[in-house]
Amino acid sequence: MGFRDFFKTFFLGFWDYETPKVMVVKNRTLGIIYRSIHLLVTTYFIWYVFISQKAYQDSETRPESSVYTKMRGTALLGDTVQDMVEYVRPSEGGDVISTILRKELTYNQRQGVCAEHFSVPSANCTSDLDCTEGEVNFDGQGQRTGRCVPYYNYTFKTCEIRTWCPIEEFAAIREPPLKEAINFTVYIKNTIHFPTFKVLRGNIKPNRGRYLNRCTYNEETDPYCPNFRLGYIAEQARENFTELCETGGVIGVFINWNCDFDMDPSNCVPTYAFRRLDVRKNLPSSGYNYRFAKYYSRNGKEFRTLIKAFGIRLDVIVHGHAGKFSIIPTIINMVTALTSVGICSLICDWILLTFIDKNEVYSERKFDEVSEESPPVTMADITLTSYGSIHSDLSEGVAL
Amino acid sequence: MGFRDFFKTFFLGFWDYETPKVMVVKNRTLGIIYRSIHLLVTTYFIWYVFISQKAYQDSETRPESSVYTKMRGTALLGDTVQDMVEYVRPSEGGDVISTILRKELTYNQRQGVCAEHFSVPSANCTSDLDCTEGEVNFDGQGQRTGRCVPYYNYTFKTCEIRTWCPIEEFAAIREPPLKEAINFTVYIKNTIHFPTFKVLRGNIKPNRGRYLNRCTYNEETDPYCPNFRLGYIAEQARENFTELCETGGVIGVFINWNCDFDMDPSNCVPTYAFRRLDVRKNLPSSGYNYRFAKYYSRNGKEFRTLIKAFGIRLDVIVHGHAGKFSIIPTIINMVTALTSVGICSLICDWILLTFIDKNEVYSERKFDEVSEESPPVTMADITLTSYGSIHSDLSEGVAL
Amino acid sequence: MGFRDFFKTFFLGFWDYETPKVMVVKNRTLGIIYRSIHLLVTTYFIWYVFISQKAYQDSETRPESSVYTKMRGTALLGDTVQDMVEYVRPSEGGDVISTILRKELTYNQRQGVCAEHFSVPSANCTSDLDCTEGEVNFDGQGQRTGRCVPYYNYTFKTCEIRTWCPIEEFAAIREPPLKEAINFTVYIKNTIHFPTFKVLRGNIKPNRGRYLNRCTYNEETDPYCPNFRLGYIAEQARENFTELCETGGVIGVFINWNCDFDMDPSNCVPTYAFRRLDVRKNLPSSGYNYRFAKYYSRNGKEFRTLIKAFGIRLDVIVHGHAGKFSIIPTIINMVTALTSVGICSLICDWILLTFIDKNEVYSERKFDEVSEESPPVTMADITLTSYGSIHSDLSEGVAL
Repeated sequence: MGFRDFFKTFFLGFWDYETPKVMVVKNRTLGIIYRSIHLLVTTYFIWYVFISQKAYQDSETRPESSVYTKMRGTALLGDTVQDMVEYVRPSEGGDVISTILRKELTYNQRQGVCAEHFSVPSANCTSDLDCTEGEVNFDGQGQRTGRCVPYYNYTFKTCEIRTWCPIEEFAAIREPPLKEAINFTVYIKNTIHFPTFKVLRGNIKPNRGRYLNRCTYNEETDPYCPNFRLGYIAEQARENFTELCETGGVIGVFINWNCDFDMDPSNCVPTYAFRRLDVRKNLPSSGYNYRFAKYYSRNGKEFRTLIKAFGIRLDVIVHGHAGKFSIIPTIINMVTALTSVGICSLICDWILLTFIDKNEVYSERKFDEVSEESPPVTMADITLTSYGSIHSDLSEGVAL
Repeated sequence: MGFRDFFKTFFLGFWDYETPKVMVVKNRTLGIIYRSIHLLVTTYFIWYVFISQKAYQDSETRPESSVYTKMRGTALLGDTVQDMVEYVRPSEGGDVISTILRKELTYNQRQGVCAEHFSVPSANCTSDLDCTEGEVNFDGQGQRTGRCVPYYNYTFKTCEIRTWCPIEEFAAIREPPLKEAINFTVYIKNTIHFPTFKVLRGNIKPNRGRYLNRCTYNEETDPYCPNFRLGYIAEQARENFTELCETGGVIGVFINWNCDFDMDPSNCVPTYAFRRLDVRKNLPSSGYNYRFAKYYSRNGKEFRTLIKAFGIRLDVIVHGHAGKFSIIPTIINMVTALTSVGICSLICDWILLTFIDKNEVYSERKFDEVSEESPPVTMADITLTSYGSIHSDLSEGVAL
Repeated sequence: MGFRDFFKTFFLGFWDYETPKVMVVKNRTLGIIYRSIHLLVTTYFIWYVFISQKAYQDSETRPESSVYTKMRGTALLGDTVQDMVEYVRPSEGGDVISTILRKELTYNQRQGVCAEHFSVPSANCTSDLDCTEGEVNFDGQGQRTGRCVPYYNYTFKTCEIRTWCPIEEFAAIREPPLKEAINFTVYIKNTIHFPTFKVLRGNIKPNRGRYLNRCTYNEETDPYCPNFRLGYIAEQARENFTELCETGGVIGVFINWNCDFDMDPSNCVPTYAFRRLDVRKNLPSSGYNYRFAKYYSRNGKEFRTLIKAFGIRLDVIVHGHAGKFSIIPTIINMVTALTSVGICSLICDWILLTFIDKNEVYSERKFDEVSEESPPVTMADITLTSYGSIHSDLSEGVAL
């Protein structure tokens, strides 16, 4: 066979269509099993993959999100009325915003020397010999001067330290919690952008005018209002507001966008969820607090008011998922579905050959054995070889 | 057949190779259809999956990113010149940085009593009877004292409130916008790390020296400079800078890393995009503003300067995608490609049996029916059974 | 064949089971190749897909995370002892926290006029003619007044500018670095929530009491303590702490949760890693620094202390991955595994037909050619057609 012949053969063969030869088993039991598995696989694909998981869609799960927050409300504190500038930190209105609910204030601290707190290890002393000069205790507030001094107006003595005086543990004044803060509102503006689908959505409906300033969010009655009462947030997070006022806490505000752009984009509205993020109530350090200071200058000397603030930190966390029909995932998943149907044959073949094929009537017809030892086949041999193979099959058993 | 025989048979059968029997259909039309679908599937895999989607690569889409930002520029404001310390908040230079473009200042506020703003509902009064002591109006600034007082220097009266006095609505001084801010620059340093590939890249080319302090970014002329003019950012985001000065706004700075580590890593450079994030211009509360205060102490009394700041907030958002050749995804996708070719047979079989198989010449050869009722096969029966089956096939019709 | 017949045929055919006819090749070489590839594919799936990649699990990679940080420690600075309120910014304790390690302070700045720094281009002058009134140099600190004045106490002159005076370059006092900061600790509380599995975990073991205040983290000796020494962090990030004190730097604290919820959830504990994020040491602007100011009022005039702070910024980055057995991915991956076995046949068929099939003994039996030109099959024709087909096959060569 020369090159020209080979090429001709190859070229002719190239346009031939090959299809597997199939044995049709007219067995009702097997047929029912086969079709049942078939149905199961088809149902799985149609219902779970295509309807529930929307596999015919291109999806995007990490949208670009922008959050802007602003707190509103005024609170009575003894004689004074404080506004949000006093209570909200940081002031820039990003996705993490905290409001102070209770303060422990230490006024007029300045650099100097004063008595260490008595609870600090080895701080209690009777004479200067008990205090090592220059020592810095890890649990203490400063560097020891080496002197033993009376603990403020008390009769016992502690080691003197160099630090901001007076020390917070002694001088801090505990303010009552801001229970009115339950009615504070936080305005949350969230804009979301799905770059793949070029869709931009916000959680605020336009053309609402002054309505936005007056409404408060409620899942049932006012789901499009972006003002959230702190009391509502605490309640949804299943936390006691009075308790939060005492210890502080971190609450997650989850904004969930689940959008199907095969439908009208106006259906793409967010849902909100609230959950406490810093749980583990039995921890000694549970809750949320931080310290900061306000600085003053008097006669050229720097003073500060140290503030230990307990409050609610709101972490606004945005999740987004969008889908839209696309031809490529549809094809891929349909191909996967069709090839997965092949699994039915595997199961049924196993049933067929193991349980039903008692007299090897099926295996004989399914399997056609060709031995290595077969002599080169000639026209005359074909019938004999073929039968011989089946014969040897019978005497040897099923070859699986 | 004893256990030893069974084992021998199984062991011999285990090393047999099974391959499906195939019917070759010498039909030009079908062959062309078959090869066309074949070509389509192959093209799809080679072009889309392997070339366009780079399925032969291991990919990583969530790199570790670090952003450091710093603003530069000085601005004239009446008689004074202000620097960035006055205008940039927060000062720590994270991935969210805002610059103040316009201020509304309320100087010398202190805790006290003063007249409520006349726009607050039920704040206008003629006598003390109109004002309820202790009432806190949600839209108001403080707690009513129960007295009706003249509204600052005006002739009409409003209810007196306890709050920071004077109230912002009355006393705020509106500064002109900082139009020079159009030339402020923001230096953005972004370092990115792909843990899977152990590659670390930055958006700044090393060994540039003082060049970095002088250049400004421009997509065409200077794409490696990390200093971005605010005017350029606003322009790229298609916003009017003068308008931004009035209302403020949030602009996203998108840094996009799309890296192919099969090529030289020096090709892995970021692209920048800018887009306004807080759109919906028709909202009453559009734009970006926040309030903060500077605190002073005079004669032991605390004063504050309340600042309502309108500005541009830049949110630096980093996206990253990197790929590198890996043997496992290559194999998986090649196997998927090869099994997907099976779809061609499904389509062609359907065409074959429905449209071409007019005289059932193909289905007879493709399908070999075996009935449950077939008697146990003996050597002698084979030829007859086989032909009989085909015969019954002919009289019954295609069994699909 | 009427409709009733067709329906009957279809209905009967629907319950038939079709299974491919198979040729069993009794060739030891091919059998070994076949089983080896088989083994390879099976091993790959069992070991890599199921054991290593845990493909039988539903997985979740983007847990909700909440981070709360707090620094502790006191530092000696000359005569004074400073606490964390002075050194940590921002104070709110989010996932980005920075501690100041070195300060350059410019005291008592106020709005006014003073000499420009001599390094600014064209700032050196001999007479007023050299200074253009109203000019704002990009590298300079303010607006030129048009006068040429002596540079503070020096003999040479520079242009006068309107700005915060004195200028930082002249008046800044460089404080020594806070080397004691190596013993500062940062308390990192991280709570993580996998919404799919409804599992909430924290990095702190409950019921530890005061232990939490005293311990410091060490990978070997104390892996459950959430207090990290800055010195330990720097060491793990392979950075020199003394160098960091000089230039500052950004260090990533990576908290890695890798949880298998098929096991006891108490095994789900995080691992920590530390890495410098702002590398590229040869950059002129490497390191981490920022400027902020403290404001004072004296006789109604505003003063500020400008602080250029060099420090360590810790970016806490949380990665999470959790898996749990689920029936759907298990089925999908098993189906994929079983269909992938089909690849073995493709390879062996190619070997069989190319290398082993010398006398076309196999191809004759595998392929059954049917020509378009075949006359309608009748009972009488079958034997002949069949053999004729094989015969033509022999003379034409393999049709693949």
